Amino acid sequence: MKDFTEWFENVLDQAGLVDTRYPVKGMYVWLPYGMQLRGRVLGILRRLLEETGHQEVLFPLLIPEDQFAKEAEHIRGFEDQVYWVTRGGGSDLDVRLVLRPTSETAMYPMFSLWIRSHADLPLKVYQVVSVFRCETKMTKPLIRVREVTTFKEAHTVHATAEDAERQVREAVEIYKRFFDELGIPYLITRRPPWDTFAGAEYSIAFDTVSPEGKTLQIGTVHNLGQKFSQVFRIRYLDRDGNHRLAYQTCYGISERVIASLIFTHGDELGPCFPPKVAPIQVVIVPIPFEGFDPLPLAREVKERLERVQLRVQLDGGEERPGEKYYKWERRGVPLRIEIGPEEVRQRKVTAVPRDTRERLEVPLADLEARIPELLGELGERLRRRAWERLKERIVEASSFEELKGEGVIGRIFWCGREECARQVEEQLGLSMLGMEVEDPSVGKCLVCGREGKRAVVARTY
Amino acid sequence: MKDFTEWFENVLDQAGLVDTRYPVKGMYVWLPYGMQLRGRVLGILRRLLEETGHQEVLFPLLIPEDQFAKEAEHIRGFEDQVYWVTRGGGSDLDVRLVLRPTSETAMYPMFSLWIRSHADLPLKVYQVVSVFRCETKMTKPLIRVREVTTFKEAHTVHATAEDAERQVREAVEIYKRFFDELGIPYLITRRPPWDTFAGAEYSIAFDTVSPEGKTLQIGTVHNLGQKFSQVFRIRYLDRDGNHRLAYQTCYGISERVIASLIFTHGDELGPCFPPKVAPIQVVIVPIPFEGFDPLPLAREVKERLERVQLRVQLDGGEERPGEKYYKWERRGVPLRIEIGPEEVRQRKVTAVPRDTRERLEVPLADLEARIPELLGELGERLRRRAWERLKERIVEASSFEELKGEGVIGRIFWCGREECARQVEEQLGLSMLGMEVEDPSVGKCLVCGREGKRAVVARTY
Repeated sequence: MKDFTEWFENVLDQAGLVDTRYPVKGMYVWLPYGMQLRGRVLGILRRLLEETGHQEVLFPLLIPEDQFAKEAEHIRGFEDQVYWVTRGGGSDLDVRLVLRPTSETAMYPMFSLWIRSHADLPLKVYQVVSVFRCETKMTKPLIRVREVTTFKEAHTVHATAEDAERQVREAVEIYKRFFDELGIPYLITRRPPWDTFAGAEYSIAFDTVSPEGKTLQIGTVHNLGQKFSQVFRIRYLDRDGNHRLAYQTCYGISERVIASLIFTHGDELGPCFPPKVAPIQVVIVPIPFEGFDPLPLAREVKERLERVQLRVQLDGGEERPGEKYYKWERRGVPLRIEIGPEEVRQRKVTAVPRDTRERLEVPLADLEARIPELLGELGERLRRRAWERLKERIVEASSFEELKGEGVIGRIFWCGREECARQVEEQLGLSMLGMEVEDPSVGKCLVCGREGKRAVVARTY
Repeated sequence: MKDFTEWFENVLDQAGLVDTRYPVKGMYVWLPYGMQLRGRVLGILRRLLEETGHQEVLFPLLIPEDQFAKEAEHIRGFEDQVYWVTRGGGSDLDVRLVLRPTSETAMYPMFSLWIRSHADLPLKVYQVVSVFRCETKMTKPLIRVREVTTFKEAHTVHATAEDAERQVREAVEIYKRFFDELGIPYLITRRPPWDTFAGAEYSIAFDTVSPEGKTLQIGTVHNLGQKFSQVFRIRYLDRDGNHRLAYQTCYGISERVIASLIFTHGDELGPCFPPKVAPIQVVIVPIPFEGFDPLPLAREVKERLERVQLRVQLDGGEERPGEKYYKWERRGVPLRIEIGPEEVRQRKVTAVPRDTRERLEVPLADLEARIPELLGELGERLRRRAWERLKERIVEASSFEELKGEGVIGRIFWCGREECARQVEEQLGLSMLGMEVEDPSVGKCLVCGREGKRAVVARTY
């Protein structure tokens, strides 16, 4: 993969996922194949959220300016990148409306109406919506966009700080399971104060790494404390009849997860989708040869695999087999089944996993058992390799020198002070992602030598 | 139902479907229960569309002004009711962006890139999105809103006028099946020219009727001819190598279908959801009595019904049974099962359909067979009654006098001229819905006596 950006946009185009030619910068069209992939990925996320008691809601897109401006830090964090609706129905609006960049200020005024007593808590809701950010940086499909078309945002309200803290941990667990199911490797860090969500007490972020060695933020979990509940008056009556201010959290995932899926499991040719979410899991390519018609067997195989709930496409088109292989590889179908004269004669199929390109013989009698197994093994292989690749980049560094390689992700000790982080940034071009959430070890700050904790530095998008 | 508007907003509130207190006029919050209902309704629609070869896509929300303005009739039809984004990222935008009121002008420039030859046709796509209309009329939740949160719009492209015509018929069939599954009765008319979709050759509309006797447009199908394909240059190479202009159709359904579900099958107390889409199909209310604990049996019944794929809620709360009955009736649960001492003793349950309120005894042994049957019968009953109620309102009129009753829907003969329609409007307050699509009979125009066709007039929203 020489030029990542070029490769990525090529893949999107050739795989038929997204059309990047929409005439507004940073906004894209989801094509049917992309929508199917997106639907399956969201399906996993929804299941994980519902299993943990989150309920789906849907709030309006437009937020009145006065609500949006209520929490001072929040508006300061977002005002430079929001879109404003100023006209409607042929005249100027009395109150300008902001296209939600995120929904705290749309939801929380309603939460204050919904929550009366401790019996209403915890409140755990989520929605999947478009949010808008007028990005000034270079846009990139699925990665830096102006309409985030696939924003899953969850918002919770709790009686105590401990409950909110527990919810943050639950959210981190949900996201770990989510990315694990997709085989996307991640680093979990607590963002430094200057990179904390506008209005949060603290933010925990998931980052993955691109093939060019830059980290990409793919999920965030924020403990909002009482900052918003104070402003929006979200209070409840406790068991003793006292009015108390609630505690809140929120956490989000965007279509960057789709970008990560593509580049994490991709190669020169294009993506290889994990079988769990691949719109087509198996493509069957019949190989006609004089005197042999492979189509009846191909149809039988399709039917039998569909009966065990696999998503199968039989490519009976006019192209030559080689062209078909190429086409479906570029579309990321994880397993190809070839059926030619040999296969018909010997009552078998040849299965070719997209990643290894091994040619595996599967007797017809074993079809229903073996093909799902091959898909499972492939998914596991994708996940393991992705984690290996991430780990290979990690350097446990105790000197600047060790961090100088191409695409290095540095694990260092850091005292937590901004000036030390800035020195790393200036001298190495590596940003401070934050302290590692799951590593309690301590050591001397790489920069100043004061006591510090495990932190991660990397090139970022 | 004395005051329909009051009843309707009450029901929405008490059933926990939508919260109407969002601080922007005409914009509402979907609550979890409403989202579940909406999801099931959309599920039916998606299935019908996928079965007929429509593929889901997702286009950006924002349309640049120059694209939006390309089709002259279209912009004239919409410019008075659109919202404009004029600022973003802290400064005025070079090109103003419109919040889509519908997506023709977002989609069709892309269609012209996608379509090259006859092999690319027909193109049949749909999306489910929010669209925005800055309504100046009085807003009403789910009925007249400024953010239509549930807009299913399908768009198709065809090689010939005949194909487009055939597609219009297919769309009408899809919508008929859709409303039939929901038990919502409808009238199908071809809208008069002055009520045709801005940019269409002609429009066919589905209307249903509210309890106060006004018709509500709940679905539309438009034959766009070549009006848009000309402007957006949607051309294809035919089999003989000639460039040809394509033909187009589009058709849409909005959350008014949810409003119709509620008022069509509602009574004084609230809604009664058809079992096919009810978020909870069966609620079990245990009735404790000294010496008898109905909970074990209630749990057994729940488990057994869930095993046959029913959506069941066991209400084990503290309220008295009567309060529970009332609560679940107002939430539109179609079937209640009561389990008290008698039921435990006799190994049976008492089933109470929401509509008839009959008390039916079902032996435990028949549970898995009888309960789904009761739900099926209930759904059928809802549908039949709804159609009866619509038909009772219809008056086949050959004089103005006959059309003077409260909530009358008139079937008249009409010559097609605007001045005759205007006379009906002025003298009777009844709007011309249009010519009936499925009735070929002819007769003398009610107003002028010229030859006319079957047309429908009614009070409308």
